[in-house]
Amino acid sequence: MAEYHAPDNKTVHELNNIANRIRINSILSTSKSNSGHPTSSSSCAEILSVLFFRIMKYKVDVPRDISSDRFVMSKGHACPALYSAWVETGHMTKEQLMTLRENGSVYEGHPTPKIDFIDVATGSLGQGLGMAAGMAYVGKYIDKSNYRVYCLLGDGEVAEGAVWEAMAFASHYKLDNLVAIIDVTRLGQSEETALGHHTEIYKKRAEAFGWNSIEVDGHCVSELSKSFHLAESCKDLPTCLVAKTFKGKNMIGQENLHGFHGKPVSPASKEEILNHLEKLVSENSGVKLTPTLPVDDTKPVDISNIKLSSPPDYELGQKIATRAGYGKALIKIGQRCDRVYSLDGDMKNSTFAQDYKKAFPDHFIECFIAEQNMVGVGIGMATRDRTVVFLSTFAAFMARAYDHIRMGAVCHTNINIFGSHCGISIGADGPSQMALEDLAMFRAVQGSTVFYPSDVVSVERAVELSANTKGICFIRGARAATPVVYDKDTKFEVGRCQILKQKSGDKVTIVAGGITFAEALKAFDKLQTDGIGVTLIDIFSVKPVDKDGIYQAAWQPGKDPHGGDHYEEGGIGSAVAEALSECTGITQKRLAVRGLPYSAAPNELLAAFKIDCDAIVEAVKSML
Amino acid sequence: MAEYHAPDNKTVHELNNIANRIRINSILSTSKSNSGHPTSSSSCAEILSVLFFRIMKYKVDVPRDISSDRFVMSKGHACPALYSAWVETGHMTKEQLMTLRENGSVYEGHPTPKIDFIDVATGSLGQGLGMAAGMAYVGKYIDKSNYRVYCLLGDGEVAEGAVWEAMAFASHYKLDNLVAIIDVTRLGQSEETALGHHTEIYKKRAEAFGWNSIEVDGHCVSELSKSFHLAESCKDLPTCLVAKTFKGKNMIGQENLHGFHGKPVSPASKEEILNHLEKLVSENSGVKLTPTLPVDDTKPVDISNIKLSSPPDYELGQKIATRAGYGKALIKIGQRCDRVYSLDGDMKNSTFAQDYKKAFPDHFIECFIAEQNMVGVGIGMATRDRTVVFLSTFAAFMARAYDHIRMGAVCHTNINIFGSHCGISIGADGPSQMALEDLAMFRAVQGSTVFYPSDVVSVERAVELSANTKGICFIRGARAATPVVYDKDTKFEVGRCQILKQKSGDKVTIVAGGITFAEALKAFDKLQTDGIGVTLIDIFSVKPVDKDGIYQAAWQPGKDPHGGDHYEEGGIGSAVAEALSECTGITQKRLAVRGLPYSAAPNELLAAFKIDCDAIVEAVKSML
Repeated sequence: MAEYHAPDNKTVHELNNIANRIRINSILSTSKSNSGHPTSSSSCAEILSVLFFRIMKYKVDVPRDISSDRFVMSKGHACPALYSAWVETGHMTKEQLMTLRENGSVYEGHPTPKIDFIDVATGSLGQGLGMAAGMAYVGKYIDKSNYRVYCLLGDGEVAEGAVWEAMAFASHYKLDNLVAIIDVTRLGQSEETALGHHTEIYKKRAEAFGWNSIEVDGHCVSELSKSFHLAESCKDLPTCLVAKTFKGKNMIGQENLHGFHGKPVSPASKEEILNHLEKLVSENSGVKLTPTLPVDDTKPVDISNIKLSSPPDYELGQKIATRAGYGKALIKIGQRCDRVYSLDGDMKNSTFAQDYKKAFPDHFIECFIAEQNMVGVGIGMATRDRTVVFLSTFAAFMARAYDHIRMGAVCHTNINIFGSHCGISIGADGPSQMALEDLAMFRAVQGSTVFYPSDVVSVERAVELSANTKGICFIRGARAATPVVYDKDTKFEVGRCQILKQKSGDKVTIVAGGITFAEALKAFDKLQTDGIGVTLIDIFSVKPVDKDGIYQAAWQPGKDPHGGDHYEEGGIGSAVAEALSECTGITQKRLAVRGLPYSAAPNELLAAFKIDCDAIVEAVKSML
Repeated sequence: MAEYHAPDNKTVHELNNIANRIRINSILSTSKSNSGHPTSSSSCAEILSVLFFRIMKYKVDVPRDISSDRFVMSKGHACPALYSAWVETGHMTKEQLMTLRENGSVYEGHPTPKIDFIDVATGSLGQGLGMAAGMAYVGKYIDKSNYRVYCLLGDGEVAEGAVWEAMAFASHYKLDNLVAIIDVTRLGQSEETALGHHTEIYKKRAEAFGWNSIEVDGHCVSELSKSFHLAESCKDLPTCLVAKTFKGKNMIGQENLHGFHGKPVSPASKEEILNHLEKLVSENSGVKLTPTLPVDDTKPVDISNIKLSSPPDYELGQKIATRAGYGKALIKIGQRCDRVYSLDGDMKNSTFAQDYKKAFPDHFIECFIAEQNMVGVGIGMATRDRTVVFLSTFAAFMARAYDHIRMGAVCHTNINIFGSHCGISIGADGPSQMALEDLAMFRAVQGSTVFYPSDVVSVERAVELSANTKGICFIRGARAATPVVYDKDTKFEVGRCQILKQKSGDKVTIVAGGITFAEALKAFDKLQTDGIGVTLIDIFSVKPVDKDGIYQAAWQPGKDPHGGDHYEEGGIGSAVAEALSECTGITQKRLAVRGLPYSAAPNELLAAFKIDCDAIVEAVKSML
């Protein structure tokens, strides 16, 4: 263990001064905005002063520097304290801080990466540690650099299961470059937390989850300094500092008291509180603290313009599941870019992520059955464009991580998600395993791109497009084998459908995707036999949907049945109904899964829920 | 502690025979269906034989009996073992078992309450314990009965954070009538679990989370019997049995080996495996075990036809937030029915659930910041119609529990959810706190009902309707105060909109809800001043949407702008576009939040994202 140098008296004094200035600025800024969380900011002031002026190695003027230590404020509502810490570094001005929560200010009510020193948005509690673990994983195993990752959690949010998923992940992967600090104030928003000030219970839990765990007085800068040193000296284990603190610390009339969560200081008590804090910082410490610079040991990377190493190459009509194409495509982009990482939730033999693991074993991360953490880790890994991340599991189980995915959009993340085994077409496993809400869910994510490839060629292209598309990309994959319909030169684009069949005199336009596209192909033949011409569209890009392409194709026939293997709300039918809502003259019919499905053979279910070939034929005929 | 009587030799013999017959039947049924999980069934065979024939008190012929012990199979994929246990009891026939996973059979690939001995559907891992905790809470504190709740978990699913949320909940509320059994097989689906056979780590984790925790040989019926006895004797602490087991136990060539997850026994190995098992059960134990009957100590309850104790009573035009009406309405139905329970995730001072807590302190359960568990507990509490459950938190954070909500539909649950602080109109807190995906998310839940009340009168009625509506009900609430528009006698129905303004000659029909309805009211006045007549609809019931009502109102003008405070996909605009998709002749314009919002004042955001009064006026004029 490196020798420990305790901070001298002047340093202790200055660290305390910084902490109290953080309190003052947190109060002033939240008073100015007339909303925000000064008491939650106050409890962590010493933790931040010690981290930013004694522990972390970073470049004040280049917050996103690739070799610098990272800080994640999981208790995002306490961001006035974080912003105030950056005011102390000189990177931010006090004037900027005073725009807190104002229209047009990047200093929002909860942190987002609009700010240059924020990597991940927080504010939905319990998510920061998983993201921090993703960043630490990259630091230790991919960048192989010295930077460390610090994550500050509130005690209330430790009730979130996602925290314990991250705890398990971090110890399993021996992330000794990761430090969690739990700010144990005892007080939640509306009442005392379940564990109050029992820091020994937090310690015991963190230890049981494989962490080096240290109880510490969260207001004692010397104890904090020593504990962070111990963390740095601990090999193979992540460290958790369980910091006993007081909400509203040093705020007269509010310290350790209920009733002040998320409330700016009242005008009546403001003067007394500020006077007291001003007095605490009135004596000059005689020293100016500057952050330590990092060692520049991290290499820049380029993850732009990633292509498949070879075009998809299959025989037309050959039957292969799109999930098999997912595994193949990952390998092909991995051959071109050494920053492609695959994460899976103990489903890799079903999602075909295992093919990638076989090809690139050290580019695969098993996340076990913890989808929230898988998404959190993925978001962390993708920060500062260090890696291209593909996550996979059954599409149904991505619902588990919906809040993380939603927050991913606020993080401006670029993760890619492959969800296999969509829809009732999985058959006998039953409704718990069937993704039927996934399209509704992913379409509603801000800035997302949603692909529903119908064959193995288009899924390979969807993977390639996803790797190069900003925002969250979701690729919906099926369990069943579907026929290859595209040759290797077919061009696919975000927001572009494929018009497979079209001729003049077509009476109806069919829009389908995935398994229902395979059924629609059969329906096309049947209708042809009956002398009914239909235009046939493979939707491919469910979001953005190809509004013009579908409109143009549907306009002439004026009739348009569409649908897929999902519930009625939010799926293909909704995408098309929305796209066509501004025009008139096109009658639509939407096929979808109506009612709760059950175990049965795939073809039995497709028929029973009326999304199979016969149902499509029937729908078309009913519109004539 | 009550004296412990170890099972005699004959009983041990018979318990082992039962376990091996469970294995045989699990193999036979999954072979017949040609899918399913015989090895995962095999690992828990002794646990089930001991529970069903030595420990649990229940009525074989009345599985839903209100005084009987409950069993939750959290590792739902091992249901062939559970079904086989019920074959052993005589409640099910072997012929019924052999319909496993067949079309029309209630014995699906994962358990659902279509079966009379299943309370909650499982199959999305990590959810059973929270549901079991809800059932145990009802048993201990509401029914105040002796029945106990047993929950069997797989080791792989213990990686899910939801399990640790439930662990924390159960110890916090001292649920000593709850027993979790972790079936530690070491083997996940695609590789070894993170903790392998380290049962001591599971034990340490459960202990740290406040549980009485016992390591046990999961194949030793004597050790299991003793451990369950110790569990029953433990006061104030829930008990966790950490059972070391082997996947594929007693299945020659498969025991404790990789590669057999979710695979029926191959025809080549079937004979050898079955012969071995048949040999194990060939010797008659000389005893027949029958389950112990429960004490009938639980009272029937009636939760039907719940009404507000008094009609909503406000002054027209008065401004009140719908969330305030939520608290009021809960009290009013609580005054009529003593089985109404409110659960909240440390947001009760924001959601107004605290009003109910004040009125009925022992009918409120603080679930802390653990939304997944709150939903799981709610689903458990609502089983067998024991309670009427209302859950509340910010609508944005319900995304955290989406997989639980999705599974709630498979559970045929009747829980009610109030999500406050929807949309950008919350203002300065920023996007992490804004529910903008919630309507898309809840609409896509099978059988759900979605209310978006615009004023405090309609929210009271929405609460009343929810209490009496089957399935998952979601009520979307706003932070901001909106004007009262309905008098106390206005009738509200599921699937019925309110047409507030309508006269002949109207040019355009506006459909809105919540805060945008308040804006639409202002727009109506402005348009009136400009001589433009518009029909004005308050959507109220977003699902089912009032297709006919909206169609009739929109048909004559033929133009229909609609929208609300949510993202473009899946919200009000989508509901209306879907509803009108089958007709032609109505041009629509959808207003919604396009782009990622940020911190600013509510009115600034409503204007910037073009869902305010001016934007509505502009949209109407653009359609003329």
